[in-house]
Amino acid sequence: MADNKKMVREITSMEDDFAQWYTDVVKKAELVDYSSVRGCMVIRPYGWAIWENIQKILDARFKATGHENVAMPLFIPESLLQKEKDHVEGFAPEVAWVTHGGSEELTERLCVRPTSETLFCEHYSHIIHSYRDLPKLYNQWCSVVRWEKTSRPFLRSVEFYWQEGHTMHETAEEAMEETERMLNLYADFCEHELAMPVIRGQKTDKEKFAGAQATYTIEAMMHDGKALQSGTSHYFGDGFARAFDITFTGRDNTLQYPHQTSWGMSTRLIGAIIMTHGDDNGLVLPPAVAPIQVVVIPVAQHKEGVLEKARELADRLSRFCRVKIDDSDNSAGWKYAEYEMKGVPLRLEIGPRDIEENQCVLVRRDNREKAFVSLDALEETIPRLLESVRQGLYDKALANREARTVTATTLEELVEKAGAQNCFIKTMWCGDEACELKLKEVAGVTSRCMPFAQEHLADTCVCCGRPAKTMIYWGKAY
Amino acid sequence: MADNKKMVREITSMEDDFAQWYTDVVKKAELVDYSSVRGCMVIRPYGWAIWENIQKILDARFKATGHENVAMPLFIPESLLQKEKDHVEGFAPEVAWVTHGGSEELTERLCVRPTSETLFCEHYSHIIHSYRDLPKLYNQWCSVVRWEKTSRPFLRSVEFYWQEGHTMHETAEEAMEETERMLNLYADFCEHELAMPVIRGQKTDKEKFAGAQATYTIEAMMHDGKALQSGTSHYFGDGFARAFDITFTGRDNTLQYPHQTSWGMSTRLIGAIIMTHGDDNGLVLPPAVAPIQVVVIPVAQHKEGVLEKARELADRLSRFCRVKIDDSDNSAGWKYAEYEMKGVPLRLEIGPRDIEENQCVLVRRDNREKAFVSLDALEETIPRLLESVRQGLYDKALANREARTVTATTLEELVEKAGAQNCFIKTMWCGDEACELKLKEVAGVTSRCMPFAQEHLADTCVCCGRPAKTMIYWGKAY
Repeated sequence: MADNKKMVREITSMEDDFAQWYTDVVKKAELVDYSSVRGCMVIRPYGWAIWENIQKILDARFKATGHENVAMPLFIPESLLQKEKDHVEGFAPEVAWVTHGGSEELTERLCVRPTSETLFCEHYSHIIHSYRDLPKLYNQWCSVVRWEKTSRPFLRSVEFYWQEGHTMHETAEEAMEETERMLNLYADFCEHELAMPVIRGQKTDKEKFAGAQATYTIEAMMHDGKALQSGTSHYFGDGFARAFDITFTGRDNTLQYPHQTSWGMSTRLIGAIIMTHGDDNGLVLPPAVAPIQVVVIPVAQHKEGVLEKARELADRLSRFCRVKIDDSDNSAGWKYAEYEMKGVPLRLEIGPRDIEENQCVLVRRDNREKAFVSLDALEETIPRLLESVRQGLYDKALANREARTVTATTLEELVEKAGAQNCFIKTMWCGDEACELKLKEVAGVTSRCMPFAQEHLADTCVCCGRPAKTMIYWGKAY
Repeated sequence: MADNKKMVREITSMEDDFAQWYTDVVKKAELVDYSSVRGCMVIRPYGWAIWENIQKILDARFKATGHENVAMPLFIPESLLQKEKDHVEGFAPEVAWVTHGGSEELTERLCVRPTSETLFCEHYSHIIHSYRDLPKLYNQWCSVVRWEKTSRPFLRSVEFYWQEGHTMHETAEEAMEETERMLNLYADFCEHELAMPVIRGQKTDKEKFAGAQATYTIEAMMHDGKALQSGTSHYFGDGFARAFDITFTGRDNTLQYPHQTSWGMSTRLIGAIIMTHGDDNGLVLPPAVAPIQVVVIPVAQHKEGVLEKARELADRLSRFCRVKIDDSDNSAGWKYAEYEMKGVPLRLEIGPRDIEENQCVLVRRDNREKAFVSLDALEETIPRLLESVRQGLYDKALANREARTVTATTLEELVEKAGAQNCFIKTMWCGDEACELKLKEVAGVTSRCMPFAQEHLADTCVCCGRPAKTMIYWGKAY
């Protein structure tokens, strides 16, 4: 405990060193621990509880839209991975290979799944025979492994947790609708539950998923102006179906290939939450996924009746929110700092004077606003305050994004603006990969997405000056 | 669909070939699909939904007893696995080894976790410093990999799903209490939620977990008289703590080693459910974990008002149980067979005549009892019937176990009884491993457990005739 007291206070300021601030928060809010396994982390109870809350909400939304959960094997035989040419080219360089079982060398090596399109396709080839078997709307919650050279907790790691939806449809139109439906579900989840505004759009061919015909994305802006790709949804057409020989008898009695999608969100979202809402006192959690929504702190808890009242309140609150009481013998000041570091949205303080006056103090984590609230009004006030916190977080994040979003119509302008600060740069683009490569080279930015909400900013490509095909966002990204 | 119609009917009888019956049920109730990954299975939506229900109940019980969920890495570096001598000897021969990441050979190979004691211990060495940090009560839900030669869905597979609890305590007594608490929680879960009677006891030294000082187990009897180890709880003393140098400053200011437990239950439970309750019509699910508790079948659904009424009922039932309506154009008879195969505890039939008389027919899956029930009484009747199904399943399983439990006081008697039928054989035992090996050799039985509920059956060991130390159960096991 003595150690903790010191630790809690020492955190780098965001402005001094954003990367170090992030590492400090992740460690001191007790979200992860490092392990001796290269690139893999231990997700600690507080971090995992955030993920469980994310899972619960998303899983309910998936089920409400007709999806079912399944579990595919952890391993993919090399020959299976190789069936779809673009896919294997994209993933083979970054997979972990199992070559031995016990003391025996395997006749065919297995990779630890980096994603599971191939496994789903093999299964679908067994169970899809008729149009009556469609659509298949499957999802799985699991971890996947990609042999990254560098790693940062939640943002980039060899092993990470995610959900991967894989669906099969009778027609291209239905598959495309599903791709969009899930992207919109993701965007709605981010904006409403995580209080994180996102830009919806399509990835360029260069940035799309290996094997996909089209990849849609939601892009969020972090506090430091960098982008974080927060969820993707892919349309595959019938490419995998052909490679895996998945056919069905259609309504017209002809043999057809089904059309496929996949979509995923991962523990990166926790990184996004930290970097969108956090501040120099630590984590700031959106109420919907906060493991503790209200922490009850007894003040002068040695005085008669205080602990009893605090416990009674915690018990009462537990009926409508996630509450924790801290009745340890640490000082009230220490506790305030501790739960600020952990990003608990509301703090309820209750002391002898409050009890006399039938009130308590409620302090918001996001803006430190304090309110004296009658103990009779908690059932009404707390849900309202939690919603205010959510709205406050959203507004602040949106304001940051708007302040850091600029437009450029010439290469010089783009280079200058990209050099001035991390930001989203809106431009027109000809659609040519050469221009993407050039902007990366001269301005250090990558294409984020071609937004669904198109604007006409100019007639010509920001880079080459040829006629523009689309509006696009550029930025530096995690 | 045409294919399905045929498939549903074709199932081997339990008495003809129990193993084939099991395989048929697993396949035709759509619990799993085979994959091209050796020893790994695809768990299909219906099978995974059973596991999700098991998870939900167990997870709530773990949390109610103070446990928190975490996530440890998927991989264990070879040097970490080797830190505890008995543990590595037990597991090294059956792990999958990752030797390459991308195109590079690793400097140290990693095994895919077969169990996570070593990872938890490494983490605990980082976070346990003082007696104030204890106990640590952690659990994780994940899959583990053991390189088994043979595999059967749910019962034995290279990859399987489980939860593994890992706890650290200030004293040996507290750790021992935890070991027993979790075994009792498992037993209670099996008996009350899965309707599966179990025998609680301790494993012999030969059968205990690699690295444990003591292993406790719950043993269930399957329909065919074989045993299935359904959950285990291990007491480690401070062996791992010493190997991993985990120390804490005690209340007396001395440096001490904490005392450790681990405990696990797995998707084997689904195999246990199948083999405990199933019959020649397929799966029979205990209501607590059934994905569908009541299936509503409209009879003569083309007649006016039938579908509407059936949907209205399904909607009403969804408020207090898991319900599905099958309004497909398959025949009622086909539907009956389908949901019997899937083990749905209750079938609700509603036709034009029923609607006229404001009633419906409720049919129990376990004993096919039919009842005409007033539509006004469903909120009361259905929960009561589901509880009757549970009790009926439990009683039947218990009766089977009692009919197949025998006592032996001499080796000849044991050999004869073991040869007559699969059964549990209760005997006295001297505690010597030589006698365990001998019984395996001459009667094909292994020790199941030394039950907590001891009986005095004789003074001498059933095998060697020397003075007995304990009563013990023997049997053939999955």
